[in-house]
Amino acid sequence: MTSSAQTATLRLNCRDAKGIVYNVSKFIFERGGNIIDAQQHTEELHNRFFMRVYFDRASMAVTKKELRDDLEKLAVEFDMQAEWSFSDERRRMAVMVSKYDHCLYDLLLRHQYGEINADIALIVSNHPDLEDVAAQFRVPFVHVLVDAARREEAEKRTLELLRQHYIDFVVLARYMQVLSPLMVESFRNRIINVHHGFLPAFKGAKPYHQAYERGVKLIGATSHYVTEELDAGPIIAQETVPVKHTHSVAELIAMGRDIEKKVLAAAVKAHAEDRIMVYHRRTIVFE
Amino acid sequence: MTSSAQTATLRLNCRDAKGIVYNVSKFIFERGGNIIDAQQHTEELHNRFFMRVYFDRASMAVTKKELRDDLEKLAVEFDMQAEWSFSDERRRMAVMVSKYDHCLYDLLLRHQYGEINADIALIVSNHPDLEDVAAQFRVPFVHVLVDAARREEAEKRTLELLRQHYIDFVVLARYMQVLSPLMVESFRNRIINVHHGFLPAFKGAKPYHQAYERGVKLIGATSHYVTEELDAGPIIAQETVPVKHTHSVAELIAMGRDIEKKVLAAAVKAHAEDRIMVYHRRTIVFE
Amino acid sequence: MTSSAQTATLRLNCRDAKGIVYNVSKFIFERGGNIIDAQQHTEELHNRFFMRVYFDRASMAVTKKELRDDLEKLAVEFDMQAEWSFSDERRRMAVMVSKYDHCLYDLLLRHQYGEINADIALIVSNHPDLEDVAAQFRVPFVHVLVDAARREEAEKRTLELLRQHYIDFVVLARYMQVLSPLMVESFRNRIINVHHGFLPAFKGAKPYHQAYERGVKLIGATSHYVTEELDAGPIIAQETVPVKHTHSVAELIAMGRDIEKKVLAAAVKAHAEDRIMVYHRRTIVFE
Amino acid sequence: MTSSAQTATLRLNCRDAKGIVYNVSKFIFERGGNIIDAQQHTEELHNRFFMRVYFDRASMAVTKKELRDDLEKLAVEFDMQAEWSFSDERRRMAVMVSKYDHCLYDLLLRHQYGEINADIALIVSNHPDLEDVAAQFRVPFVHVLVDAARREEAEKRTLELLRQHYIDFVVLARYMQVLSPLMVESFRNRIINVHHGFLPAFKGAKPYHQAYERGVKLIGATSHYVTEELDAGPIIAQETVPVKHTHSVAELIAMGRDIEKKVLAAAVKAHAEDRIMVYHRRTIVFE
Repeated sequence: MTSSAQTATLRLNCRDAKGIVYNVSKFIFERGGNIIDAQQHTEELHNRFFMRVYFDRASMAVTKKELRDDLEKLAVEFDMQAEWSFSDERRRMAVMVSKYDHCLYDLLLRHQYGEINADIALIVSNHPDLEDVAAQFRVPFVHVLVDAARREEAEKRTLELLRQHYIDFVVLARYMQVLSPLMVESFRNRIINVHHGFLPAFKGAKPYHQAYERGVKLIGATSHYVTEELDAGPIIAQETVPVKHTHSVAELIAMGRDIEKKVLAAAVKAHAEDRIMVYHRRTIVFE
Repeated sequence: MTSSAQTATLRLNCRDAKGIVYNVSKFIFERGGNIIDAQQHTEELHNRFFMRVYFDRASMAVTKKELRDDLEKLAVEFDMQAEWSFSDERRRMAVMVSKYDHCLYDLLLRHQYGEINADIALIVSNHPDLEDVAAQFRVPFVHVLVDAARREEAEKRTLELLRQHYIDFVVLARYMQVLSPLMVESFRNRIINVHHGFLPAFKGAKPYHQAYERGVKLIGATSHYVTEELDAGPIIAQETVPVKHTHSVAELIAMGRDIEKKVLAAAVKAHAEDRIMVYHRRTIVFE
Repeated sequence: MTSSAQTATLRLNCRDAKGIVYNVSKFIFERGGNIIDAQQHTEELHNRFFMRVYFDRASMAVTKKELRDDLEKLAVEFDMQAEWSFSDERRRMAVMVSKYDHCLYDLLLRHQYGEINADIALIVSNHPDLEDVAAQFRVPFVHVLVDAARREEAEKRTLELLRQHYIDFVVLARYMQVLSPLMVESFRNRIINVHHGFLPAFKGAKPYHQAYERGVKLIGATSHYVTEELDAGPIIAQETVPVKHTHSVAELIAMGRDIEKKVLAAAVKAHAEDRIMVYHRRTIVFE
Repeated sequence: MTSSAQTATLRLNCRDAKGIVYNVSKFIFERGGNIIDAQQHTEELHNRFFMRVYFDRASMAVTKKELRDDLEKLAVEFDMQAEWSFSDERRRMAVMVSKYDHCLYDLLLRHQYGEINADIALIVSNHPDLEDVAAQFRVPFVHVLVDAARREEAEKRTLELLRQHYIDFVVLARYMQVLSPLMVESFRNRIINVHHGFLPAFKGAKPYHQAYERGVKLIGATSHYVTEELDAGPIIAQETVPVKHTHSVAELIAMGRDIEKKVLAAAVKAHAEDRIMVYHRRTIVFE
């Protein structure tokens, strides 16, 4: 969960083949690294191998650049896609909100407790309401007005802000606007949204009203990466909570807040710890 | 859960009005009954009042017929729909199956443990495979072949069987055939089905394959009353179980068996204890 | 969940007898009240009957005093213990904390969302740390130093504060001090504590360390009324969360925060809505 | 979950050191094996490293004996404890029962569905009642009378039976007798019991009655390895289910059956797949 200043995480995927675990562990061993955790998964449907190695590099003689370059040979040999992250390059996240504060408070508090392996570097909102909450936790808050006439301008401004603040990934904490394809493309698999329904049921607006009318006995919440198609991106975490005929829509909404916080926090933590890989619309979430 | 030989259950619903609880409790008190449990619910959307009263009638002087007749005045006054059931008229259920045995075993065992307030009086199947299971528990088993050419004939035969065995309600325990409108109409709100998916998501065939492909992080099962529209009837119980990227479709199916049994048993128990009321596609399930 | 300005809640218990529901509903009906919800429970072990009636008294001609006085006759007849509460006398709660803020934030936010049917009127702490949190939500905060030498004085001061602020019930939101018998007696069944373990296992200090060492596969949290015996009062709500060999004690503590918040909030909501009755060390929690 | 005819599982533990993953993967790679799954865990408290490697040995030239012998060098170098299992030596389990059949049925059915990677080779009971159930599934059943006078003789007979049937591990599926130290010693970490309570609370007899009297809001079940001390062995799996004041002891028992089956099945599956390691009274259960 925590990471000291001298660890690295390597995530890779390639066609399944003999000797990958051996070659990767050899690569790390020969350079003086010590594997703390290694996990792999073979997706039989596509015969695809996925691996995540988390290792201590405190006593390694090589630089980060050398690590990256050296791995290239292995990557070519196995036709791997590889991704590195290093504990001394701590991730910076932006949170985008509208008026609901429950997910925002939850993230700010979990960050304060040291549960999230990233910094909350910026809060962007299309409403000014939550500026005070941001101030309490001393996080920069920027209000970017989004209206029909200036949608494009607002997105441009937002992208600029994300760049200025060196943002690595974006969390939509009940942000009530659809993002443009440009924004999605710029942060591919790096924008996490929470949907207040059990996807793929109850897409779109007012999912708790839909759930009430359908008379379901469980309501759900889903966190997922944002793609061009609304509420259809790769799912990261889901939760449900039992409901009864006695619960009004207002009560479903109240109960929903709890599971929204939970699935969003789970997704943010997993992303910040480099435990997620996306392949063909599904996520592999190593634990 | 259990019911001695001299209890009665009255379920009623009407427009919400002052004095219903008073009048119903008076009705029972004046005739010497003792309320064991009473529950009510007001559906604000339709301003509709629902009530279930379970009472001891051992020391009541009136007959069941008199009870029914006497209530009529109250029913007219409040424009009530009322339904009676009596512990000395134990319900008889038929279970319809195909080849999967897990839900059947679960119901037979729960019945044996005294968990279900009804008798399993008949098992009907479109395959002969589970005859042995029925025999172990000494329940009559009838194989009714269903094929494209004789679908109508098969249904007629089934309805006849249900009548002969005085069946009160029907449980589809992974029965792999769609019922005709006639059958549905004959047992309106008295046919319970288990769907191996979290409705309204994943309707129709192969829901676990659908869930796998969509990459959900929970799979579900749903028990509901059968209506003319496939997998769209009033939901009685739902459950989900967390799944991971590591689970194959075969493992989803295995995990699904456990929640299918659970939601079907919950629905059968609630139905047999007269705890369910249906209104506008939603169920009220008193506990 | 919500309560308009003109509702009342009556909780009563007595030996089980015929006609109680009838007599209580008659009592309300004859005075022009309209029952919104009524629930009852018979504890077979002690042959004891419990009832909670929630009713609209907007069109009742009688005063609250008259209601109380009139009920006395019924109470005597059935040897009832009865307790009234009225929506126009909104409850005032005090929260006692030490240094942990997660339960406090959770209660303050839920209160802000309108989930809790009471006002948070005062925060008392044996440490000054959480004064800022209280200020953000504009709740009076008093620091009452508790040390070995001045324990008695501190308790006296606290009781005085509770009186001055017209406090109806007290919530120990991870308050790290044991209360005196005087305090417990003064607020009998009106002090709610959260214990960070699954009672009756793991009483006392460092329950997460105990759980880790025992190698349990679930950790729990418990909310209960405080009695003279440590961690032995009537349980109101409990939750567990699955844990694995991979989780360190620090992670158990982090996971524990989530269920501590949940069980404490559940208890506070139920208490504030007058849904709890205590009898022989067990609670009846009407839903 | 399944295992083809040519896989092997190696479980090992040793003091944490650099290069273990590398050396183990090299060991397998050099002999032509293909790692299907590898997991490791470092217990920081004892600085102990645990690893489970599951690999395909279909194209390996070495025999099982050679594999074992070759590993010895590595084992000595790292001071490892190592344990092998091979898919072509399918495990044989015995189930011990008394009169309750729910766990027995559950295991027999799961075995039939292919969920358990072992054969149910023998059922031993101190009562004759479940002989019919055994017969339905065509598993040998032996009734071994256990009474105060012949306890020792009964145990001797049981051990003999286990030997005759080449039993690898024993499952106590609500077997209502305490085993002798000899029996425990003979099958150290190979006897799985289910306790109908949430350990370490509610040890010993009548845990559901204890739970009812204490007024808990969750009941639990626990599967664990049997040790000399009653209900104190290493825990493998635990589950809880919410209960209310409305539930009688009889209903707690009924609800308990469902979680007893669940935790016992989880433990049996994990054991049969060689996913459990025991260290200092705790289990590591690889997924």
